[in-house]
Amino acid sequence: MTIKMNLNADMAEGFGAYDIGDDSGILKIIGSANIACGFHAGDPLIMRRVVAEAKQNGVTIGVHPGFNDLWGFGRRRIDTRPDDLESMVAYQIGALQAMAAFSDVKVTHLKPHGALNNMAAESSEYALAIGRAIKAVDSSIIYVALAGSEMEKAGRKLGLRVAVEGFCDRQYDDDGNLTSRKIPGSVLKVTSRNGKKIPCKVHSLCVHGDEPTGVATAKAVREALEKAGVKLVPLTEMPLD
Amino acid sequence: MTIKMNLNADMAEGFGAYDIGDDSGILKIIGSANIACGFHAGDPLIMRRVVAEAKQNGVTIGVHPGFNDLWGFGRRRIDTRPDDLESMVAYQIGALQAMAAFSDVKVTHLKPHGALNNMAAESSEYALAIGRAIKAVDSSIIYVALAGSEMEKAGRKLGLRVAVEGFCDRQYDDDGNLTSRKIPGSVLKVTSRNGKKIPCKVHSLCVHGDEPTGVATAKAVREALEKAGVKLVPLTEMPLD
Amino acid sequence: MTIKMNLNADMAEGFGAYDIGDDSGILKIIGSANIACGFHAGDPLIMRRVVAEAKQNGVTIGVHPGFNDLWGFGRRRIDTRPDDLESMVAYQIGALQAMAAFSDVKVTHLKPHGALNNMAAESSEYALAIGRAIKAVDSSIIYVALAGSEMEKAGRKLGLRVAVEGFCDRQYDDDGNLTSRKIPGSVLKVTSRNGKKIPCKVHSLCVHGDEPTGVATAKAVREALEKAGVKLVPLTEMPLD
Amino acid sequence: MTIKMNLNADMAEGFGAYDIGDDSGILKIIGSANIACGFHAGDPLIMRRVVAEAKQNGVTIGVHPGFNDLWGFGRRRIDTRPDDLESMVAYQIGALQAMAAFSDVKVTHLKPHGALNNMAAESSEYALAIGRAIKAVDSSIIYVALAGSEMEKAGRKLGLRVAVEGFCDRQYDDDGNLTSRKIPGSVLKVTSRNGKKIPCKVHSLCVHGDEPTGVATAKAVREALEKAGVKLVPLTEMPLD
Repeated sequence: MTIKMNLNADMAEGFGAYDIGDDSGILKIIGSANIACGFHAGDPLIMRRVVAEAKQNGVTIGVHPGFNDLWGFGRRRIDTRPDDLESMVAYQIGALQAMAAFSDVKVTHLKPHGALNNMAAESSEYALAIGRAIKAVDSSIIYVALAGSEMEKAGRKLGLRVAVEGFCDRQYDDDGNLTSRKIPGSVLKVTSRNGKKIPCKVHSLCVHGDEPTGVATAKAVREALEKAGVKLVPLTEMPLD
Repeated sequence: MTIKMNLNADMAEGFGAYDIGDDSGILKIIGSANIACGFHAGDPLIMRRVVAEAKQNGVTIGVHPGFNDLWGFGRRRIDTRPDDLESMVAYQIGALQAMAAFSDVKVTHLKPHGALNNMAAESSEYALAIGRAIKAVDSSIIYVALAGSEMEKAGRKLGLRVAVEGFCDRQYDDDGNLTSRKIPGSVLKVTSRNGKKIPCKVHSLCVHGDEPTGVATAKAVREALEKAGVKLVPLTEMPLD
Repeated sequence: MTIKMNLNADMAEGFGAYDIGDDSGILKIIGSANIACGFHAGDPLIMRRVVAEAKQNGVTIGVHPGFNDLWGFGRRRIDTRPDDLESMVAYQIGALQAMAAFSDVKVTHLKPHGALNNMAAESSEYALAIGRAIKAVDSSIIYVALAGSEMEKAGRKLGLRVAVEGFCDRQYDDDGNLTSRKIPGSVLKVTSRNGKKIPCKVHSLCVHGDEPTGVATAKAVREALEKAGVKLVPLTEMPLD
Repeated sequence: MTIKMNLNADMAEGFGAYDIGDDSGILKIIGSANIACGFHAGDPLIMRRVVAEAKQNGVTIGVHPGFNDLWGFGRRRIDTRPDDLESMVAYQIGALQAMAAFSDVKVTHLKPHGALNNMAAESSEYALAIGRAIKAVDSSIIYVALAGSEMEKAGRKLGLRVAVEGFCDRQYDDDGNLTSRKIPGSVLKVTSRNGKKIPCKVHSLCVHGDEPTGVATAKAVREALEKAGVKLVPLTEMPLD
């Protein structure tokens, strides 16, 4: 039996005259792209262009919603009412759906960005608010949730399709939390830094394109997985139970 | 035969803690609401709330896209490349569609805001860019175009449904352009300030809620039309040829 | 001996087409105005206009810096690095100094806004960052600090002039923290809701203009103080030890 | 007699996580830096950092005000009321003065950015509005004005110190207007593309750091000037008549 795995990366995080990350380079490696939607980064032009390029590369696209904090690039924790968050995430989903219409592709997943991702991993209120936004706008959208996080629980509770995410370039503690940015010995069986095997099933691994060595690292991950016989696919082709 | 007419108004133009206009008052009078979408005004919360309230009042909703100029409230002319504009308008359509999903209603029309409306009335490049955005995201959306404007031509050229708009509280020059904010003698047969009848068919009249006397004026217009036997309907019920 | 007291209020919190609060009404009551500087609210035009009007009313002006969060009106806690905060506050001081130049008045105090004020009251890092900004730009600016807060300590540690602030429309707990928005029996001797006298010296009391009853409440406070023989003065005329 | 010349460049045009241009490279070449102030680009952190680095390089600093259009990077023409513009420019001057206080340096010149520079070159209303902002905040600030532009006239009319600017990498038409981006035969005697000598006195030449070849071109210009015996100095050391 072929083991399948998805690689995802954050994309389209420029704004106006500003560029960041190597979108074209990463799109050749991954299966699914998380598109910034104009709140923490991104704008209509970049969204549209990256969606088109993703399609050309056979890469599926997802919403990458963040806090409305362009200056902070969505990396600052902002105390937001969950109901407000729900509306803000829905807005970003719709915006990307419209940009995707130009390429006649569907938005098939959602993964929160930066501080929002961190907060939603810990807070069921945030995790549920994001899930409710998905449910309201398009309940077929896959909720990409950090393994063992409140997002995973919220997604299941709301009856959404959930893709469990791990980081291929991060090490885990025994409790399943991320510790550092080193590549673990094995990406498929998650092993804590003390050697303990953590029983988590991972559907998608996140690679980073905004760091100088991003594309090279991502490429190495892809090649290692392929050498190990893993088939890399878009999220839409992953068996999500 | 019953004459039908639509009244539209700009709505949801607050932002965060800021309120402007009497949305609830105007929603009791009009048939179709133009919802600001976060560029010149508006935010996800207000959009969602006003869409819900519009539904309760039997009012259809439309996109009210503007320049990305919150400070200027979309009233400053900004030199924008038509292709950029196309993407920006599409983004705003999608954002509203998502907010409309919470109320399970459809976005059925689009009318540009402020300086964008003025520029698109004069420039075929702008008018076409807006029309292409509609066509890409949802070609069933009605393009609300100032009578005789480049928008009207662009909408027809692109094969879109066009609703011709007049202003019930504005006077016209002989060439069909707006001159002042007075109510003309007749709203159905547009008469220039020199008494000339302008051969324009109007499907929708714009009333303003953001001015102090907005609701009262709008109410007077509505009552005058009803007294004259005109049936006021949402844009979706207007015969658009 | 005449007892002196200062009344301060937040001002100039509109933005572009948006208005909020009754600046003109409040300026007739207070001695010192906290001017929003374009981050959480405010813009160059409103700043300039309110500074001019403050001068006409004999009201001194101060910086009212907030987080760069217009949508949240500076009311959302944003996790910001203290060094970044220092630069952001300095920027806002300079901006107001420039707008004050049009009226040939000096910026004489600073009081943080909303969530920043709350965070700086609790965090010495934030309180010191704000103090360092004052020190770098104009060390004669009075740091308005909530009684007993980390801001009061930071101001003294940095050798700045500190004005201790209380709220005339709020009740205190025994530990000196605010509990509700009721007017306490006495504004000069702060009494907790359990009747305990809290040993805090207050130089300035904050009144609110952005609530519907703001001006009326502020007026009542002013009249009560004057009836009690208290002389209301600008912050610059308060003895700050 | 030694001929003096100033080289200026636009700087500090990043924003938050976004970088643009090679500030450090250009600061080794120029005499005066135009610092973006948070409207079209720039933020308090970058302003402060670049001011400090300019000081280390013996480079004087100036305000580089732009339209409030981060997305458009200040390159879109925005129809703005001159009075509004006056306040917006003053605000940016003050903001930079505060950031300069951290390095204990003075803001000594001002040069508008992008579309604002183009509009102020053509419109006396805009040019005067900018000049009035300088006059109100610090009348000793040098107004850097394109040779023969409305800015040059406005500056002289208002009694400001004016530095006349040319572009060392641009060719001129016979009427003194810029035509292309070629380096003219002589930067000191401006020669039109038809060989006509244009009687304009230039105090400062603009080099560009945001283009890929910016630093190399700027270095070549500097070396050519020095080889020709020209002494390169900060704007403050230029004889401005």
